[in-house]
Amino acid sequence: LADDGTVVIPGAASYNGLNLVPQMGWDNWNAFGCSVNESLLLDTAQAMVDYGLRDLGYNYVILDDCWSIGRNASGYQVPDPVTFPNGMKYIADHLHSMGLKFGMYSSAGLFTCGKRPGSLGYETQDAEFFAANGVDYLKYDNCFNQGQSGTPKLSFDRYNVMSQALNATGRPIVYSLCNWGDDNPYDWAYTISNAGRMSGDIYDSFNRPDDRCPCTVNPCNWPGFHCSVLNILNKMAPIQSRTMSGYFNDMDMLEVGNGGQTDNEYVTHFSMWAMMSSPLLMGTDVVGLSPANLAIYSNPAVIALNQDPSAAAGSRIWRHECNDTDQYGQCEQSLWMRGLKNGDTVIALINGANSTQTMNASLSDIFLDARTAGTSKPAAQLEEMWDVYDLWANRMSNEEAAAILARNSTTAPAVITANSTSTTRYNTTAMSYADGLKANATALFGKKVGSVPAHGTWTASIPRHSTGLYRLRMAGSGGMGKRDEL
Amino acid sequence: LADDGTVVIPGAASYNGLNLVPQMGWDNWNAFGCSVNESLLLDTAQAMVDYGLRDLGYNYVILDDCWSIGRNASGYQVPDPVTFPNGMKYIADHLHSMGLKFGMYSSAGLFTCGKRPGSLGYETQDAEFFAANGVDYLKYDNCFNQGQSGTPKLSFDRYNVMSQALNATGRPIVYSLCNWGDDNPYDWAYTISNAGRMSGDIYDSFNRPDDRCPCTVNPCNWPGFHCSVLNILNKMAPIQSRTMSGYFNDMDMLEVGNGGQTDNEYVTHFSMWAMMSSPLLMGTDVVGLSPANLAIYSNPAVIALNQDPSAAAGSRIWRHECNDTDQYGQCEQSLWMRGLKNGDTVIALINGANSTQTMNASLSDIFLDARTAGTSKPAAQLEEMWDVYDLWANRMSNEEAAAILARNSTTAPAVITANSTSTTRYNTTAMSYADGLKANATALFGKKVGSVPAHGTWTASIPRHSTGLYRLRMAGSGGMGKRDEL
Amino acid sequence: LADDGTVVIPGAASYNGLNLVPQMGWDNWNAFGCSVNESLLLDTAQAMVDYGLRDLGYNYVILDDCWSIGRNASGYQVPDPVTFPNGMKYIADHLHSMGLKFGMYSSAGLFTCGKRPGSLGYETQDAEFFAANGVDYLKYDNCFNQGQSGTPKLSFDRYNVMSQALNATGRPIVYSLCNWGDDNPYDWAYTISNAGRMSGDIYDSFNRPDDRCPCTVNPCNWPGFHCSVLNILNKMAPIQSRTMSGYFNDMDMLEVGNGGQTDNEYVTHFSMWAMMSSPLLMGTDVVGLSPANLAIYSNPAVIALNQDPSAAAGSRIWRHECNDTDQYGQCEQSLWMRGLKNGDTVIALINGANSTQTMNASLSDIFLDARTAGTSKPAAQLEEMWDVYDLWANRMSNEEAAAILARNSTTAPAVITANSTSTTRYNTTAMSYADGLKANATALFGKKVGSVPAHGTWTASIPRHSTGLYRLRMAGSGGMGKRDEL
Amino acid sequence: LADDGTVVIPGAASYNGLNLVPQMGWDNWNAFGCSVNESLLLDTAQAMVDYGLRDLGYNYVILDDCWSIGRNASGYQVPDPVTFPNGMKYIADHLHSMGLKFGMYSSAGLFTCGKRPGSLGYETQDAEFFAANGVDYLKYDNCFNQGQSGTPKLSFDRYNVMSQALNATGRPIVYSLCNWGDDNPYDWAYTISNAGRMSGDIYDSFNRPDDRCPCTVNPCNWPGFHCSVLNILNKMAPIQSRTMSGYFNDMDMLEVGNGGQTDNEYVTHFSMWAMMSSPLLMGTDVVGLSPANLAIYSNPAVIALNQDPSAAAGSRIWRHECNDTDQYGQCEQSLWMRGLKNGDTVIALINGANSTQTMNASLSDIFLDARTAGTSKPAAQLEEMWDVYDLWANRMSNEEAAAILARNSTTAPAVITANSTSTTRYNTTAMSYADGLKANATALFGKKVGSVPAHGTWTASIPRHSTGLYRLRMAGSGGMGKRDEL
Repeated sequence: LADDGTVVIPGAASYNGLNLVPQMGWDNWNAFGCSVNESLLLDTAQAMVDYGLRDLGYNYVILDDCWSIGRNASGYQVPDPVTFPNGMKYIADHLHSMGLKFGMYSSAGLFTCGKRPGSLGYETQDAEFFAANGVDYLKYDNCFNQGQSGTPKLSFDRYNVMSQALNATGRPIVYSLCNWGDDNPYDWAYTISNAGRMSGDIYDSFNRPDDRCPCTVNPCNWPGFHCSVLNILNKMAPIQSRTMSGYFNDMDMLEVGNGGQTDNEYVTHFSMWAMMSSPLLMGTDVVGLSPANLAIYSNPAVIALNQDPSAAAGSRIWRHECNDTDQYGQCEQSLWMRGLKNGDTVIALINGANSTQTMNASLSDIFLDARTAGTSKPAAQLEEMWDVYDLWANRMSNEEAAAILARNSTTAPAVITANSTSTTRYNTTAMSYADGLKANATALFGKKVGSVPAHGTWTASIPRHSTGLYRLRMAGSGGMGKRDEL
Repeated sequence: LADDGTVVIPGAASYNGLNLVPQMGWDNWNAFGCSVNESLLLDTAQAMVDYGLRDLGYNYVILDDCWSIGRNASGYQVPDPVTFPNGMKYIADHLHSMGLKFGMYSSAGLFTCGKRPGSLGYETQDAEFFAANGVDYLKYDNCFNQGQSGTPKLSFDRYNVMSQALNATGRPIVYSLCNWGDDNPYDWAYTISNAGRMSGDIYDSFNRPDDRCPCTVNPCNWPGFHCSVLNILNKMAPIQSRTMSGYFNDMDMLEVGNGGQTDNEYVTHFSMWAMMSSPLLMGTDVVGLSPANLAIYSNPAVIALNQDPSAAAGSRIWRHECNDTDQYGQCEQSLWMRGLKNGDTVIALINGANSTQTMNASLSDIFLDARTAGTSKPAAQLEEMWDVYDLWANRMSNEEAAAILARNSTTAPAVITANSTSTTRYNTTAMSYADGLKANATALFGKKVGSVPAHGTWTASIPRHSTGLYRLRMAGSGGMGKRDEL
Repeated sequence: LADDGTVVIPGAASYNGLNLVPQMGWDNWNAFGCSVNESLLLDTAQAMVDYGLRDLGYNYVILDDCWSIGRNASGYQVPDPVTFPNGMKYIADHLHSMGLKFGMYSSAGLFTCGKRPGSLGYETQDAEFFAANGVDYLKYDNCFNQGQSGTPKLSFDRYNVMSQALNATGRPIVYSLCNWGDDNPYDWAYTISNAGRMSGDIYDSFNRPDDRCPCTVNPCNWPGFHCSVLNILNKMAPIQSRTMSGYFNDMDMLEVGNGGQTDNEYVTHFSMWAMMSSPLLMGTDVVGLSPANLAIYSNPAVIALNQDPSAAAGSRIWRHECNDTDQYGQCEQSLWMRGLKNGDTVIALINGANSTQTMNASLSDIFLDARTAGTSKPAAQLEEMWDVYDLWANRMSNEEAAAILARNSTTAPAVITANSTSTTRYNTTAMSYADGLKANATALFGKKVGSVPAHGTWTASIPRHSTGLYRLRMAGSGGMGKRDEL
Repeated sequence: LADDGTVVIPGAASYNGLNLVPQMGWDNWNAFGCSVNESLLLDTAQAMVDYGLRDLGYNYVILDDCWSIGRNASGYQVPDPVTFPNGMKYIADHLHSMGLKFGMYSSAGLFTCGKRPGSLGYETQDAEFFAANGVDYLKYDNCFNQGQSGTPKLSFDRYNVMSQALNATGRPIVYSLCNWGDDNPYDWAYTISNAGRMSGDIYDSFNRPDDRCPCTVNPCNWPGFHCSVLNILNKMAPIQSRTMSGYFNDMDMLEVGNGGQTDNEYVTHFSMWAMMSSPLLMGTDVVGLSPANLAIYSNPAVIALNQDPSAAAGSRIWRHECNDTDQYGQCEQSLWMRGLKNGDTVIALINGANSTQTMNASLSDIFLDARTAGTSKPAAQLEEMWDVYDLWANRMSNEEAAAILARNSTTAPAVITANSTSTTRYNTTAMSYADGLKANATALFGKKVGSVPAHGTWTASIPRHSTGLYRLRMAGSGGMGKRDEL
């Protein structure tokens, strides 16, 4: 039995017992591509520790493509001796000693996307290599797959070989598929992996349509790449139910910090990746982070949403196209909601119009699912008053972030210690998000900015290309609250 | 030879000889989800008997997901000892003793949708379990199917394993597929099963588009869930010919009673499920039914349409979008028709506009198929006068329904006895619908409300989000009538 | 070498050497469905002889579904002893003695569409049955195919089994697939069969969209049925190149005579089936044909187009939707062209508007392919003057047709003898269409109604829902003409 | 290591080491179809030498379909003894002696498209035949493929058989797939071949939609044929990343010279085939080339773009439909860009409107990818001034071309010798394009026509149905320039 009394069948909650909430960390690809080496990884790791990012939960350091120069006579991969002179185990040991975990990369094909050796046909050797080198995480790509695709079965069978090989090593390794939504992994990968990409590669744009990312919905017959934040987000709408504890739909690495979007756009990007339980993998130059971007990556109230034990993706309640279009001719607005483990509900109002707009979210819309869930009774949620907490209201100031980035232990000592009283910082190494949420840790709940009465509507003014992200908490002694207290 | 003189090849009419008309009953999922236990089933069964529902034909009591906690060393499933302390055979015996039948659930995957053990790879053990426990019906889901889909062949082969396993038990078990229309079961499941879902899961909404149910037509490449009544109905239009005696396209369990729709909307929902020969599986809290909803579930004239020996789905003659939109921006109107075994024809006029509308159905439209059937003669039906019977005109009053719900044998004694003279009640335990139709049982024909002359048009005022459901019967001594009398 | 000097690889021109031009004949399904018996076949055959239809080339008498009542202990099918008391060989012998050929029917599935025994798994026995009973033609359907579809390979493999079985009998049997375009037979069936349906079933309507025939283009993911004449025609546009001598894209049986269309609509239907080299299978009650419909079926100039040795389908040059819509909201106009073996070119101007329209066909449009064929020279065809022959101008009068239908040898003696001088009748038993075309047989060329000068345009007034069908013949001593004379 | 220091895995850059830049040459199909013979090939080859085309890089002479008349008893193909009286080795030897290479053709099916013997099942014999006859290149078609398609795997497996067979011969043979984009070869063919067609066959039209080429985007479920230049070009947009050194997406043979397009349209056609790294295969009557068309085929600045060692396809930055439509109702404008090996960037402004238009390309658009590449810094390219070179400004005059076509060694001696100083001619036999680009060979860079300042926009007046093709070179001593000089 699970701790909430529900029955758990062996293997049913995560195929290998890992990744019960979305993985967090850093992957070098978005910012560095093939320009990888030992010092990039170790310097970044140090910055993650120093900036408090590790203690916020960003604990995987993932080396992406371009580390291998071939196979030896036994079929094992050979790391590039120039860029990784001390080998991979050396890096893994260092990371482990820093309280971090090590991720590596390969492809379920003849080559990786960067044309290094792929693992197709070498799954056993490569899994052994990863295990022997202390690897904790595998990102597994889809390039040069020898045409072994076209039905879910063909892709499942191909990805399952590595799943079995990883299991056979005995080492716990998070297995993250990167097949871009091809053949609908969200429909079959849960039983063999811990996460799976559900779209073509992201690029650092809020909403610009790109001809290389032709689909706007899932399923998609050509994943492409250069997919914008809103493109990927909207592809989550039809598949949101396929996100579960142990398997997360991966919306791709975060672009926050890479310079292609405004601060409001990055806030939207980070908010919605959190809302949808996407993995949160920083995809930028961490060492050189700006204060504003550190503040985004460091918002504990938003990370707590992402790491909520509910481990589910939000639902899109409505989406409208609009007339106040931007330079790319785009204008859309939408409302998303997600119920959390403790009974709170988070809503996101996205304003993709070209100017500030007043937006409304009625309880009737927010609690649509409860209203139509077959209970034959009116939704109790509509009868409650809800307090509204803005999850961005306590965003760390740029001054505070700058102090942290200065790595000055005098001015920024609180990074790794403050937990219970800080509004801007959190240390999950000390107390998990699940426990912090139970304990009502201040930093995890944003700031109360108002209430919605029973049957009421929340109204907010949302800037251009931004998002209002609110946690609704039941106010006072409502009937529902009583029931939840039982 | 069949009783109408046609040749019947062994196996051609129902692969296992069962389910020649659509199954009726109750399934707990829509209203109770995983909150299942012995008393829910037995209490509901008792209510079905007491309220006359059993005798109206609702004879399957179906336990959906979440009854199993694993497998024993022999690979057989273990029912939850907390919720089902007396095991499954105990429930089956009770139900059988009440004149009811017992349905259970599993999935053609590694897990069920609720992450209990799935039957993939355990089909033999599970079929034996069901047979040994007196199960009469299996609902067989599609979750966690290990990617064994993508072509009709892959799905057929997977579902066929359980079909063969059920047959091998020797026990007659209705086999009902629940793969949401994936890989077009309406095109291949007839020879291995008795029914098959043709869409993603229903939710309790008349016509609200939901982003989680992205398709509006069949075939559909992502079934989704949260599909509205009209969404599902319209997906039947292109596949209606694939409904046949022995295999019914399952439009999912009824939401009547769950509170998300108006009375008129529920009338439409129930009417069209009957019209399309969908299984009629109550999906609500039967014990706590309201009088109005009991009246809907209990309309013998509509049930007789569903249970007509023609065992076919209606055809959509036309559908128009319109301008009088509702709060979801929806407006559509449509005309459906279906020929019955005795020569009657039923039409349905659906008004999905936001206000009452006058709607027309010409004989030319209604008898389109006869007009274009290659007979090289004008359709005889257009030359006839037709009497029009409103199938909802004799709907049971709320007072009568309330009396039944009170289970007061003094005020509601007629529930299980009245047949030949009642206009509101029927007892199929005493006389089958087929026989009742032959005998012109009053309750099965609604109330005559007018006539349509040869080449004429039926005109009716249909309220917002409602349906006019009419049985057209040939008037007097027309040429067609004479022919039929031969 | 072929007679035109081109190289022919064994098997390349028709997989079995049969059906080098489209098959012609009669199939009972459209008009009689399952109401089949010996006398229907023999009476119809006699009428085909008496009405001159056999001598026009309609030589296959095809018994469709519903002739079998099961299999015997050896697995061979058993014809219905009531409807076919003398067995099938008796019918074959009779038909052969009348100069006709015998076609039968089965399905590549567990059952036929009418739920009689299907041939899947019994291909050898059934092929032997057909050969032993003197069958010359097999229509092979797609019902109840056990999900063996979803890729071209799955369908090819299934249909190939019967192809091999038929070949193994040693009897020449035309093999005609009826899988409704499923899995694109036009892309793979050429090497294993002689014809293949490319759409869902036709119904007797010119252009009414029907919800049961959801696609308007090919490829189509749900063939459906109840497809109108224009629906099917337009589905030929993208696949026209896949019609070849030995394999014809079957647009389904003709509805001419069944009462659902106007005379002009039937003229369009017949014209375009001829234009596209579809099989010409009468689908009506031949015995009771009206004079007007006999006149349509009997137009030798149109049949000669169909039977032209070019054995190719026409191309759609353009199609426009228009505003003058009919009762179904439809309006379209199109121009089609087809080059013939002798250098003539046929054009069809279809007016799907609701009133008579003036339509134009420029030589530049008509000879588009020649203009863009990579010759690096202007199309010689544009420099020529072309005489225009109306292929319907010599349509048999209703009086003449009535005399034939009266089977009065005094008033209608010319039916089976006239050839060289008649403008309305032709006897292909005496002289093939190929030879008649070489010999400039009067009846095969319609009537000259004008000319188009070099670079000119043909203009015609086309009635509502009708078609102008014209054969363009080079006028006088043009340069092209000279070249052709070499 | 590659010469730029990057790691190269064996097989990763071209599966067989061949075709590192797009193949160039001539294929007879577009202009001659099945009318092939020895003298056509040898006469064309001589013209290619005489006109300087060989020395511009057009070195493959490809014999397309219709050369075989069957197989001998050993299963080897037999060339047509009438059209190829001296056999194939004779031709190969002649071509080799002229400094040219020999390409031949077959199909991965039972027959070729022209119904000659196909190689399916005979891959070993046919590969041996090609190798034994000195063949350097195989075009491998898709006709009559026995339904072995429908998933990437089915097509991959079928085409891989020939790939392995060619490898087994030991002779270097460029392997070029011609399966029309069926099953998305751009997604899987890289590891088994050197090029692959990505659309249905081209026809000699700039932008006319043809019903036989139904798709306008990739992936496409029915390739069709008769696809216009813009149709094919636009299908490249979503798949451009799948063009790589060693595997090129083949946009089909060039129509320049065949008479169906204006000079501006041919310029667009040739420009964009070069821009997209499509193979450049002349598809016209080379012997009879006009001066204008020779000038197009001979533009060294455009060929150098095609042969750039970057070996990649351009990206479509934007495409707009417009209102100034032509006779086919078409109007579109687009901007494309491509980065080259030496740091230059080429842009193409396509004006598909019906009149001359002023078009703009901002640096912000041109360097979109750099702006959004995750570098967390502004794109350095926007800070630079760029000199703009018009790649068509130095187009050879018709007078110069006429002199070449006259094969008069007195008036046109420069054809095969001029390299370093000519603006209109180039000899890649003497110096490769890669070396010529490094050496700043005059003819490869067009003519400077202006500059764009930092953050500026290039504006040009583009005629109807034409293209501005510009090479942007960094001006002076910018920061980026300095970096590149290291």
